[in-house]
Amino acid sequence: MSNLIGNPPVIDSARLWQALMDLARIGATARGGVRRLALTDEDRQARDLFVQWCRSAGCSISIDAVGNIFARRPGHNDALPAIMAGSHLDTQPSGGKFDGAYGVMAGLEVVRALNDVGVQTEAPIEIVAWTNEEGTRFAPSMMGSLTYAGLAPLAQTYASTDSEGKSMLAELERIGYKGEGCGGRAIAAYFEAHIEQGPVLEEEGKTIGVVLGGQGQFWYDVVLVGQDAHAGTTPMRRRHDALVGAASVVQAVNRIGRDTLRSCATVGHMRVEPNSRNVVPGRVSFTIEVRHPDDEQRLAMDAAVRRAVQEAAHANGLEVELQRILDQPATPFDADCVFAVRRAAEQRGFSHMDIVSGAAHDAIAMARIVPTAMIFVPCAGGVSHNEAESASPGDLAAGCQVLLDAIVRKAAG
Amino acid sequence: MSNLIGNPPVIDSARLWQALMDLARIGATARGGVRRLALTDEDRQARDLFVQWCRSAGCSISIDAVGNIFARRPGHNDALPAIMAGSHLDTQPSGGKFDGAYGVMAGLEVVRALNDVGVQTEAPIEIVAWTNEEGTRFAPSMMGSLTYAGLAPLAQTYASTDSEGKSMLAELERIGYKGEGCGGRAIAAYFEAHIEQGPVLEEEGKTIGVVLGGQGQFWYDVVLVGQDAHAGTTPMRRRHDALVGAASVVQAVNRIGRDTLRSCATVGHMRVEPNSRNVVPGRVSFTIEVRHPDDEQRLAMDAAVRRAVQEAAHANGLEVELQRILDQPATPFDADCVFAVRRAAEQRGFSHMDIVSGAAHDAIAMARIVPTAMIFVPCAGGVSHNEAESASPGDLAAGCQVLLDAIVRKAAG
Repeated sequence: MSNLIGNPPVIDSARLWQALMDLARIGATARGGVRRLALTDEDRQARDLFVQWCRSAGCSISIDAVGNIFARRPGHNDALPAIMAGSHLDTQPSGGKFDGAYGVMAGLEVVRALNDVGVQTEAPIEIVAWTNEEGTRFAPSMMGSLTYAGLAPLAQTYASTDSEGKSMLAELERIGYKGEGCGGRAIAAYFEAHIEQGPVLEEEGKTIGVVLGGQGQFWYDVVLVGQDAHAGTTPMRRRHDALVGAASVVQAVNRIGRDTLRSCATVGHMRVEPNSRNVVPGRVSFTIEVRHPDDEQRLAMDAAVRRAVQEAAHANGLEVELQRILDQPATPFDADCVFAVRRAAEQRGFSHMDIVSGAAHDAIAMARIVPTAMIFVPCAGGVSHNEAESASPGDLAAGCQVLLDAIVRKAAG
Repeated sequence: MSNLIGNPPVIDSARLWQALMDLARIGATARGGVRRLALTDEDRQARDLFVQWCRSAGCSISIDAVGNIFARRPGHNDALPAIMAGSHLDTQPSGGKFDGAYGVMAGLEVVRALNDVGVQTEAPIEIVAWTNEEGTRFAPSMMGSLTYAGLAPLAQTYASTDSEGKSMLAELERIGYKGEGCGGRAIAAYFEAHIEQGPVLEEEGKTIGVVLGGQGQFWYDVVLVGQDAHAGTTPMRRRHDALVGAASVVQAVNRIGRDTLRSCATVGHMRVEPNSRNVVPGRVSFTIEVRHPDDEQRLAMDAAVRRAVQEAAHANGLEVELQRILDQPATPFDADCVFAVRRAAEQRGFSHMDIVSGAAHDAIAMARIVPTAMIFVPCAGGVSHNEAESASPGDLAAGCQVLLDAIVRKAAG
C-alpha cells in the first residue's frame, strides 16, 4: 500500500460533476436550486439513486435505525475499522446543489476512482449519507449523526414531528429507509468534504480549507427593561430608553467581535416594545451569539459581552435579564486527520489555508466519537442555504482529490 | 372692569375637584381610570352632563357640525369677540381622569366663580368641548379643533371610520351631537388648561407651566439595507450588518437629543430582518422623531441626524432609504396671551416656569387661527394616557385660578 499512498489515483472531475448534477435533478427548483427536505419523496429518490450508484460501484449497503445509509467498500483486511467519508442528501427548503450532496458524491467518487485503478485499501472504506442534517423539517439538525453518535436519544429522534404533525419515525418508515441498530460501527477516521458556506476561501484565493474544528459558541437571550414614556414630553435626561441601551450592546458586541481575531459576534434578533414612533421604548429583547474556535478566547469574549450589557444597563437606568441558553465548547478535529488533509493539499499543489467551521456539520457530531477532519472548498460569494449556491467544478474536484488522498493515507492500515 | 382685573374672584377648589370626579364616573374603569372614546355612549353622557352644568351656570349652548360644544356666558358688550377656554371630554382607551376633562371643567369653574360674585366681563366667555381630541377611535387626533380651524376638511372628518367600519358622521348623529356650521366664531383669545403629561413641572417643583408653544418636529422613516449572512461563517470585516448601522444611528439620535437643550430625539420603532439569532441582519427599518420648540435648532438637529444616518451607512457598507414623512414647524403661542398666564401665576404667588408642549393639544390647532396660550399643571410622575394618571387638587385649582385671571384680563375689552 505504500505505493498507493505515495501515488494515489486521480479522481474523475467530470464524473463527480455529473453525479452532482444528476442528483440535483431530484427536487430541482425553477431557479436552479434544490428542495429536498428530509424523509420526503425527493429524499427517498435521492437515497435510491445513491444506493444504486454505490451498489454499481461494488459497495454493500446497510441502513441503520434512523435511516443513515452506509455503503461499504471492503478492505484487504476487512476486520480493520473503516475509514468513513460522507455528508447528507437532504437540503434546506430553498437549498442549493452542493450543501451536503458534495460530501456524499465526493465519497462515491473516491470509491469509483479506486475502482478505476483496481486497488484495494488495507482498511475498508465506508461512504455515509446521514439522515436529516438540515433540521428544517424535523428538529434537531444533524439528527442522523447526533443519534448515531449517541448524542440524541433514538426515542426523541423518532418522536420529532414536522409542521403537519407527521413523526420522523412514520416518515422514515413511509420512504422505506428504517433499518436496524444505530451506532457502534468500527470506524478509524471520518472525513467530510463540504462547501465552506462562508466567503473566506474565495476572498483569500485558496482552493482548500483545512478545517481545524468547529467553533465553540455561546448564546444569550437578553431583555433590557426601562420605562415607556412620551417621546415629546419626556426630557432626554429623564429617560430610561431600553433601545438606546440595546444599541450600545449591539455596538459593543460588534466591537468585541472585530477586536478578537477569528471570532464571530452577532446580535441577529431584536424586538422593541411598545415599538411606536412616539413612545420611548420601555423594553427591548435581543439575542447575542458569540463564536470562537478557542475556548479561552471565547470565555474572554463572554466576560466582555456580559460587562457591556451591564454597562449599557447602568448608563441608561435599565434592568437586565440575561440568560445564557447555550454554552458549547469548541470541537477540535483530530490532529492526525487534519494533517492528512493538509498534507494531501500540499502534495497536490493546491493552495490551502487552515480554517474553522462556523456552521454545524455532521462532522461536528462525529468528532465526539471518532477521529475526524473536514475539507472545505470555496462557494461563490460565500452564499449557501440558497438556490444561488454555487461552486466551481475545479474546486470541487480538488476537494475530492484531497479526500481521496487523505482516505488512502488513513486506510493504509 | 379694572377692579375685576386687579382683584379677580377666587375659584372654588372643592367644586372643581367634585366636577372632575363626577365626570370621571362616566366610563370609569376598575383601576381608577376612564374609558370614554369619542362619540360613544359614554362620550354622549359626558357631553349631556357638561351641557346641563353649563345651562345651570347660565350659559347658552351651541353645537357645530362636528359636535364641538360651545357654552357661552354673555359679555357686557356681547358684540366683542369672545374669550374662549376649553379642551376635550374624550379619553384614551385606558385613559385617566384629567387629560382633557380638566381643561373643560376648569372653564366651567371660571364661569361658576364669576357667577358667585355676580360680575359680568366686558367680552363674552365661551367654554368649548372639542370633539375627539385623542384620535384613538377616529383619526386624526385633534379632529374637532382641526376641522374648526379649517385644517381638516369637513368631508374627510365625516368619512373617518372606526375599527368596526362605523363612520364619524354616523356616530355623531347617533349620539345626537351633530349641529350646523363649523368655524368662524368671533374669538379674541383661546386658553387651554391641561395636565403637563410630562415630568418636568413635578421634577422642578413648579405649580404652573407657562406654555410658550408647541414643539416643531420632524419624522423620518429609515431603512438600512446590508446583506443577510451566516452569523457563524461570515468574518466580522466582511459583514454588512444593518443592525450595527441602526444601533449607531440610535446612539447618534440620542446624543443629538442630549446635546441640544430642550429637545426630544427618539427612535421608537425598529424592525429587524430576517430577525434570526444565527443570521447577520440584512435589513433594519426604524423611525426617527426629533422635536424642538425652536425651528432653527430643529433644522440643525435635522442636519445632524441626516449626517449620522449617512455615516452609519458608510461605516457599515449599507444602503440607505431615508424618507422625511413629517416636517412640522414649531407653533409659538401668542405673546400677549402667554404674558397673561405668566402674570396671573406671578400675582397669585404660584411657582411657575416657562415650558413647551411636547404633546399635541387642541390649542396647537387653535393657535393657527386665534391668539392662544396654555396653562400646564403637574401630573404625578409625568404619567398620562394611563389609568394611573393623577394630579393634585391644589395644583388643579392653581391652574384654574390662573385660567380665570387670564380670561378676566383678556375679557376686560
